[in-house]
Amino acid sequence: MTAKIVRFLEEVRPVTPCVVVDLDVVRENYLGLRHWLPLAEVYYAVKANPAPEIVRMLAEMGSSFDVASRGEIDLCLANGVRADNISFGNTIKKQSDIAYAYDKGVRLYAFDSLCELEKLAQSAPGSRVFCRILMTCDGAEWPLSRKFGCEVEMARDLLVKAREMGLDPYGVSFHVGSQQTDLRQWDIAVGKVAMLFTALDEAGIELRMVNMGGGFPAQYRTNIPAVEQYADAVMTAMTNHFGNALPAMIIEPGRSLVGDAGILETEVVLISQKGYDDDTRWVYLDIGKFGGLAETMDEAIKYRILTPHDGSETAPVILAGPTCDSADILYEKAGYEMPVGLRVGDKVRILSTGAYTTSYSAVNFNGFAPLKAYFI
Amino acid sequence: MTAKIVRFLEEVRPVTPCVVVDLDVVRENYLGLRHWLPLAEVYYAVKANPAPEIVRMLAEMGSSFDVASRGEIDLCLANGVRADNISFGNTIKKQSDIAYAYDKGVRLYAFDSLCELEKLAQSAPGSRVFCRILMTCDGAEWPLSRKFGCEVEMARDLLVKAREMGLDPYGVSFHVGSQQTDLRQWDIAVGKVAMLFTALDEAGIELRMVNMGGGFPAQYRTNIPAVEQYADAVMTAMTNHFGNALPAMIIEPGRSLVGDAGILETEVVLISQKGYDDDTRWVYLDIGKFGGLAETMDEAIKYRILTPHDGSETAPVILAGPTCDSADILYEKAGYEMPVGLRVGDKVRILSTGAYTTSYSAVNFNGFAPLKAYFI
Repeated sequence: MTAKIVRFLEEVRPVTPCVVVDLDVVRENYLGLRHWLPLAEVYYAVKANPAPEIVRMLAEMGSSFDVASRGEIDLCLANGVRADNISFGNTIKKQSDIAYAYDKGVRLYAFDSLCELEKLAQSAPGSRVFCRILMTCDGAEWPLSRKFGCEVEMARDLLVKAREMGLDPYGVSFHVGSQQTDLRQWDIAVGKVAMLFTALDEAGIELRMVNMGGGFPAQYRTNIPAVEQYADAVMTAMTNHFGNALPAMIIEPGRSLVGDAGILETEVVLISQKGYDDDTRWVYLDIGKFGGLAETMDEAIKYRILTPHDGSETAPVILAGPTCDSADILYEKAGYEMPVGLRVGDKVRILSTGAYTTSYSAVNFNGFAPLKAYFI
Repeated sequence: MTAKIVRFLEEVRPVTPCVVVDLDVVRENYLGLRHWLPLAEVYYAVKANPAPEIVRMLAEMGSSFDVASRGEIDLCLANGVRADNISFGNTIKKQSDIAYAYDKGVRLYAFDSLCELEKLAQSAPGSRVFCRILMTCDGAEWPLSRKFGCEVEMARDLLVKAREMGLDPYGVSFHVGSQQTDLRQWDIAVGKVAMLFTALDEAGIELRMVNMGGGFPAQYRTNIPAVEQYADAVMTAMTNHFGNALPAMIIEPGRSLVGDAGILETEVVLISQKGYDDDTRWVYLDIGKFGGLAETMDEAIKYRILTPHDGSETAPVILAGPTCDSADILYEKAGYEMPVGLRVGDKVRILSTGAYTTSYSAVNFNGFAPLKAYFI
C-alpha cells in the first residue's frame, strides 16, 4: 500500500473496480532483483501485466522480455524493446507465429517437444533454442500441471536433435511453479538441469544457459521470504551444481516484479444472508472471478484485503463477484473474515493485484467492462 | 453442425480461433420454446451471448430480455428492446445502476435479500419485484452454489416487506442450475414456489408470477431430452401445484437458445508427449480456458469435438489451450479421445459453442485477442 496509490485513490476517486499500479514499486522490484542476482539476466514475463507503461519502463532500465505470443512481440517492439532482448518462451507456438517472430528478429525460443523443434527448424533456422524440462514441484500456490516441459531423458535427445536440425542448442529451462514459497525447489530443479548439462556434454554439446523461469512470489496472505533469500537459494543451487563454471542465467519474473505494485479498489455492492438458520454473511463486490480476479480459481491465490473498518470486530464472510454466474465466488473456504460494521458502498482494497488481473479480465461478461487500470 | 456454418467455414476460411453462430438456429430454438411453452413469456438471458445481432433478432420476434447489468440494459435499448420488456434479473445491483435502470424505464427487478430490497425501494419505487429462492438442485452440469436466492421462509417475509416499502411483490424466481438434465427438478422447485404463494396469500398478498429461470440445456457430450419434454415437465409441474389458477410464467433461456447455434473452429498448434514412459498425447489448440472456453473449468461442460479424421482409429488425449498458464487445460480427466492421425495445423470444430464463450473471453491474456465471432 504505497502512499502514492493512496493519494491517487483519495484525489482522483476513480470509478470502481479499478487497479492502480505504482511504477516506482515495479522499478524497485526490478532493481532489487538485479542487485541480489547480478549474474542473472531478467526477462520480464509480459503476461503478468502487459501494460505498455510497464514494458516501456523496464525496457529503458535494460530488461529483456519473455513473451507468450505474437501479440506480446508486437507490444514489446512498439514500446522500445529490441528483438534480441525477446525470448519467445511459450512452448506452444503456431508455425506462422514463429515465422513472424523470426522475421522481426527474435532469435531465442523455448520448446519441449519434437513437434515444436521441427517447426523451429523450419521457420527460425539457426536460432538459439532451450528445452523446458518437466518439474513436479511442491509448494507453489498456483497449480502446476504437466502442461509444460518434457522428461529429462527426452530433453537430452531433443537437444541433440536440435543441433542436427540446424538450431543452436542453447540451454535448459524449468519452472518451479508460480508463487513458489519453498526455496528448496530451486536446488532440486538445478540439480536436474546440471545432470542434463553433463549428459549433453557427453554428446559433444556444450549448453550455455539455464533459464530458471519465474515463480518468485508476491505478497499474498501467506508470508514470503525476502528477495535476497530467493537470490541466495538460486545462487547456492547454481554454485552447488555448477561450481565455478556457471552458465548464463535467465530469470523470468512476472508476479514478483508487478504483483505488489498494484492495488485494486472495489466497492461492496451487497451484504446478505441466505436464511434465518444460516448466519453466514455473503459479501458481494463489484469485481469477481471474471472481472480480473481469475486467480481466485479454486481459491488458489489468497489476496490480502483492506476495509475502512479494519481493527474493529470481524466475522466470517463468503466473498463473491457481481455476475449472475454461480461460479463467480472468490472465497468460500479460505476462512476470510471482515468487520461486522462493513456496509454497502464501502470501498475495499485488494492488495498485490498488479499481476495477472487486467489481462485475465473478461471482455464483456455479464455486460461488465474489463478491469480499468491506472499506472502512476 | 448446420450446412450454413459449414459453407461459411469452407468459403470464408476465417482465421482461427473463431465462433460462427447460425442465427436461423437461434430463431428456430426461440420458436420451438414459444410453441411448446406458449404460456411462458421468454426473457432471453443476454449474458449467454450478448451479440447485438442476436438481441436485435429476438427483439423483432417479440422476446423479452433478462439483463445482468447496466451494460446489458444499454445493449438492449440500443438494439430495439423496449424498457418494459427488460427484467433486471441480477440480485446483486449497485444502487446507482438500479437508479439508472429505473430512469430508463425498467420496472421489473429481482432480489434475494433485505439489503437489495432497500436499494430497490429507494431507487425503483413502485416497481414489480420478484424474490429468488434458493435451490439445491442435483443434475446440473454447471455448478450451482448458494450464491443466489434465499430460503423460502425469508423470501416470504421479504415479499411482505416489499409491499410495506412501496414495491409491488410480483412473484418468485428460482433456477434449477444451468444445463439441467434432470426433469424432476422442476417439479420439486415449483412445489416450493406454490407453498410460498399460499403463505403470501395468507398474508394478504397475491403473487402473480413464477420465474423459472434458465437451465434448459444445450447439446454437449451427454444426450439431453427434447425441448417438448422440458416443456411438458414444466407445465406438468405448474398444473400439479397450481391447478387452473396458473400465474404468469417467465422463463429465462440462454444456453438453450444460442448454445447449439454456434460452432467454434480452432487449429491444432502442437501435439506432444512428455516422456518415453508416458505415451499420453497432449493436443494443444489455439483456444483454451481463457480465450472463451471458460466453462471447461473443472471440466464441467464437455463439448463435442469434430476433427478431419473422424471415423479412423482414436486414442486418449489431454486437450489444452495455447497460453503459458499451467491451468489452461480443457480436458484431462473427462476421457476425450481423438484420431491417431491428428496433425498440427488440422482444423478442429467444437460444437454447441454459441453460449458462454465470446463474452467469457479474456481481454488480452498472454497477448491473445478475444474470441472472434461471426453471426450469419
